[in-house]
Amino acid sequence: MRVIFLGTSAAVPTVSRNPSSIIVDLGREYILLDAGEGTQKQIIRSGIGFGRLSKIFISHLHGDHYYGVFPLLQTLSILKRRKPLEIYAPQGFHNVLLAITEVAPVESSFEVKVFEVRGRTSFRLKGYTVTMFPVVHGNIPTYGIAVREDDRPGRFDPQRSDELGVPLELRGLLQRGIPIKLPNGKVVHPQDVMSPPRRGKLLVYSSDTRPCRSLIEEGSEADLLIHEATYADDLRERAEQSGHSTISEAIGVAKACKAKALALTHFSARYREEDLDRLEKEAKRMFNPLIFAKDLMIYEL
Amino acid sequence: MRVIFLGTSAAVPTVSRNPSSIIVDLGREYILLDAGEGTQKQIIRSGIGFGRLSKIFISHLHGDHYYGVFPLLQTLSILKRRKPLEIYAPQGFHNVLLAITEVAPVESSFEVKVFEVRGRTSFRLKGYTVTMFPVVHGNIPTYGIAVREDDRPGRFDPQRSDELGVPLELRGLLQRGIPIKLPNGKVVHPQDVMSPPRRGKLLVYSSDTRPCRSLIEEGSEADLLIHEATYADDLRERAEQSGHSTISEAIGVAKACKAKALALTHFSARYREEDLDRLEKEAKRMFNPLIFAKDLMIYEL
Repeated sequence: MRVIFLGTSAAVPTVSRNPSSIIVDLGREYILLDAGEGTQKQIIRSGIGFGRLSKIFISHLHGDHYYGVFPLLQTLSILKRRKPLEIYAPQGFHNVLLAITEVAPVESSFEVKVFEVRGRTSFRLKGYTVTMFPVVHGNIPTYGIAVREDDRPGRFDPQRSDELGVPLELRGLLQRGIPIKLPNGKVVHPQDVMSPPRRGKLLVYSSDTRPCRSLIEEGSEADLLIHEATYADDLRERAEQSGHSTISEAIGVAKACKAKALALTHFSARYREEDLDRLEKEAKRMFNPLIFAKDLMIYEL
Repeated sequence: MRVIFLGTSAAVPTVSRNPSSIIVDLGREYILLDAGEGTQKQIIRSGIGFGRLSKIFISHLHGDHYYGVFPLLQTLSILKRRKPLEIYAPQGFHNVLLAITEVAPVESSFEVKVFEVRGRTSFRLKGYTVTMFPVVHGNIPTYGIAVREDDRPGRFDPQRSDELGVPLELRGLLQRGIPIKLPNGKVVHPQDVMSPPRRGKLLVYSSDTRPCRSLIEEGSEADLLIHEATYADDLRERAEQSGHSTISEAIGVAKACKAKALALTHFSARYREEDLDRLEKEAKRMFNPLIFAKDLMIYEL
């Protein structure tokens, strides 16, 4: 799993930061977590191409998290995309899409499938499960997003297999989790020749939120927690009022989750790059490893 | 009048070009002609600030000409704008705006006044008249936009005024266009002491269009004609099919208008920057002065 940050500013962009959007590259396909204005341009700049984009997950319907969907759809149609594109979003998204397509009826080259989400919902992807779960962002329904890789089977131990007298042609059954019976009547179980399953990676994205219990639960032992940190600690009151988090609050959530790494994002445009560099230095003393995301930064899980 | 090109690509952006948007700076205020995705970011990059933005004119409702309006409105509200903002657009725009504001009801800090245009329409601004006039872009209602500066009064000739015996205190009347009667009974007319009115500057923007009569009429003797040139001449058929113009066709319109200068824009993303440089060199042999617009280029009329 590989993360590419496309936009790391809060609602107002800066010269070097775009509104929220994150690519999660799953290998055979990639998905978007939010798609603020400029997402397509950032995809172009990243060099990843549009071909493997399969699904867009929209955390909530504040414009800086979804206004980039429509220009992206326009471009994909101009590029003659054929594969359907799936969009998972809170209720209301479809109405906006309909209003936009109504004013300029153009035959799209591909199907857009919209799934409106209400409450905690999981979606199966090949090898991954994506879960949208409610977080706490003022009065607008908002979802954090967890991307969990399936657990992978343990490693097969050929030496042990030979010691137990497993014929070569039956190894495959054991590797697929099926017990076998040897000619001598003895039963060999998969766990006799396989190490324990390896836990799949977990990526959790907070979207815009106050620190909250659901995020701590879903983010438990996340390999990477991406948490918003709109404000520095001196603006905690403003964070509370606007349903956002401060840097220390985001770090508090990461600690409560026992996250293995923390990436902060969604920085208010009031902070200049040198402010953010300073704040990052200070934050690294409180949590490690920690990064302040930048546009087009890549993180390998 | 000063033009700042914010976006000079066709629908699909490139690394160095954004979708359509143009600032026309009128001094006390500036207006936008179209506002494709990324307009607010380009305004930020241009350094002009948001304070003097007064009106947005949308030529047609293809997304690359208006998707930037909504994120811009969001930002202006976050920045606590108080002044109303006027938006002039073809029918249907208001429905999209309503759908978007419905899904995330936020109290805007300022009033958005939407005027839906049907057929040729002129609007008075302080010192300028903006006219939206139909052009020919497939089956979607599309408007070219003309910005005409009011004619300015001629220059006052103080020597001639003295020769005619005009008392100092009556000069002002003549300057405001009012004839006066001297004590000797002789009448002095404004044109006796004023040079002829100076014609205001005229800027005409084609939007997306095939070459058409309305554009040639409205663009007559324009000080600057901004014309789309989506395709090079070898793709004339594609230009016809998609309701766009080639470079030579745009130059043909400029010649028919007797435009004093021509700026081409809205270049298909198929052209690399070096292609455009070469095409510009060739085009300059056919019309002069001619420029290929680039993002953030400034043109003084």
